[in-house]
Amino acid sequence: MSVYTPVSDTQLSEWLRNYSVGTLVGVVPIQAGIENTNYFVSTSQGHYVLTLFERLPAVELPFYLDLMAHLARHGVPSPAPIADLSDRYLSHLNGKPAALVTRLPGKSMERPGARECAELGALLARMHLAGRSYAGYLENPRGPKWWRAAANAVRSFLDESRLKLLDEELRFQSLYRFPDLPRGPIHADLFRDNALFDHGRITGVIDFYFAGIDCLLLDLAVCANDWCLVDAAGDRRLDEVKTRALLGAYAGLRPFVALERGAWPVMLRAAALRFWLSRLYDLHLPRPGMLVHAHDPEHFREILALRAGAAEAPWVE
Amino acid sequence: MSVYTPVSDTQLSEWLRNYSVGTLVGVVPIQAGIENTNYFVSTSQGHYVLTLFERLPAVELPFYLDLMAHLARHGVPSPAPIADLSDRYLSHLNGKPAALVTRLPGKSMERPGARECAELGALLARMHLAGRSYAGYLENPRGPKWWRAAANAVRSFLDESRLKLLDEELRFQSLYRFPDLPRGPIHADLFRDNALFDHGRITGVIDFYFAGIDCLLLDLAVCANDWCLVDAAGDRRLDEVKTRALLGAYAGLRPFVALERGAWPVMLRAAALRFWLSRLYDLHLPRPGMLVHAHDPEHFREILALRAGAAEAPWVE
Repeated sequence: MSVYTPVSDTQLSEWLRNYSVGTLVGVVPIQAGIENTNYFVSTSQGHYVLTLFERLPAVELPFYLDLMAHLARHGVPSPAPIADLSDRYLSHLNGKPAALVTRLPGKSMERPGARECAELGALLARMHLAGRSYAGYLENPRGPKWWRAAANAVRSFLDESRLKLLDEELRFQSLYRFPDLPRGPIHADLFRDNALFDHGRITGVIDFYFAGIDCLLLDLAVCANDWCLVDAAGDRRLDEVKTRALLGAYAGLRPFVALERGAWPVMLRAAALRFWLSRLYDLHLPRPGMLVHAHDPEHFREILALRAGAAEAPWVE
Repeated sequence: MSVYTPVSDTQLSEWLRNYSVGTLVGVVPIQAGIENTNYFVSTSQGHYVLTLFERLPAVELPFYLDLMAHLARHGVPSPAPIADLSDRYLSHLNGKPAALVTRLPGKSMERPGARECAELGALLARMHLAGRSYAGYLENPRGPKWWRAAANAVRSFLDESRLKLLDEELRFQSLYRFPDLPRGPIHADLFRDNALFDHGRITGVIDFYFAGIDCLLLDLAVCANDWCLVDAAGDRRLDEVKTRALLGAYAGLRPFVALERGAWPVMLRAAALRFWLSRLYDLHLPRPGMLVHAHDPEHFREILALRAGAAEAPWVE
């Protein structure tokens, strides 16, 4: 479970007096997530999520909170941070940096079809278009620099074939940096459990704490590798219909530039590499207190091997 | 009816492409309101209100929109303006300044009781506390300067007794300006139809287009004169229980200063004067196209006469 920092009702009630959200009605710890401590908080005014930041660098937090606020005020269904009476999104609670954000309705979908992939594609495009006017800057904290550091940290745990795959991929990726692709703030972790649906519509995109500035196409690659598999528990190739639905709906709002077509297979591999590495890291070098939720790295090793070995990747014209 | 500017589906669909709120699903004109043209707008993302500003000075619009945005991000249930892809709240549609804001849930209550008056008092306090960090400035556009201008415009329509009441009240009010009362952004028009309730809770405060910087106490006086009457259609004295519920819930969050106790009866008269004058103005000097919704000025003449003649006004300690 991932509630690292307990918060009592008394502490929370007192803390909420710094806000304009009414009085505490109830609080429930959220078990999901491995980076932060989260609670569902209900007040006389509404429903919120309280996040205590356990290990994110304090200097990066304004980037995430301001990005969520920016997207929310553009109509993108991201959590909206609540400003306190000193007009700040970031506060402190129980010794940790803390923030209160709106709780969004809807439920995540375990088995999205082409229709939901299209809904996601349109949402991503709207998010990227709205993000263009965002002034904050934070390089994707899980970019190439981090890949190399993480690879060094986990390489002693890998057998020969896995080490070969890793080194070859790092070498391959180092040949492609795409400085000319459209860039901007990306979510970078928009897995199925970070999108909420209601009646077939996306009503929420949550957990922006891996966001950063990077190629917009990388967001699509991360999504494709999770949302568009033929079978997430078996055949991890990209399903053509779902992938085209994702990309087609996206391109309807933010048409791709020619360079992005060529970069797509590389980006799919980069997205697989990034999550293979983070899962290896969390498995072999877990933090104290991080007991469950260590996802199986093999899932992404296989995705990486498949993408690296594929002659083509589904695309739209 | 108060739809001064028609907007076609085609115009609206095209205009919405400047936003990140998805595609148009439906649009319905709103008949209520006399200042602006309003539409309910539904998109694939959510529900909004589109406002075309018909006569508000363009220079004042940012004060209102930024104030709503400020309050919304503090958790106060005010409409949240949606920023367009150029990151602006204010846009143009069909030749008019226009803005898109979130549509809030709930329904206004015709006959609020003490419980709802308490709910309103707490909401007002939270709104005033959150407003403290708002940097915008616009003097209440319906303040003393406007009273005098409006009085001059309508005096030729008044009989002798009404003219006497008006002149005596203007003279009385000129003795009280209360520069030392707590001030800040106030709604200044929070009648029953501008508050939305759901299950006994206020879920929305709408129509901020008379807001301005003034004594916080004036907001309470405007509310008391509408929410706390013994009988809005008959006995227009203040109901003690409802008035104390309003003031008590407010003071629980923002305790009154001593000066406010003394200013309360004057403020109740000022609030009555302001609405008597605006109703006289709208009745005798209507704008072209403003056909219905001219409220009866006599309602507020009687409230003013009652407040001026009352020995005491209900208060809390």
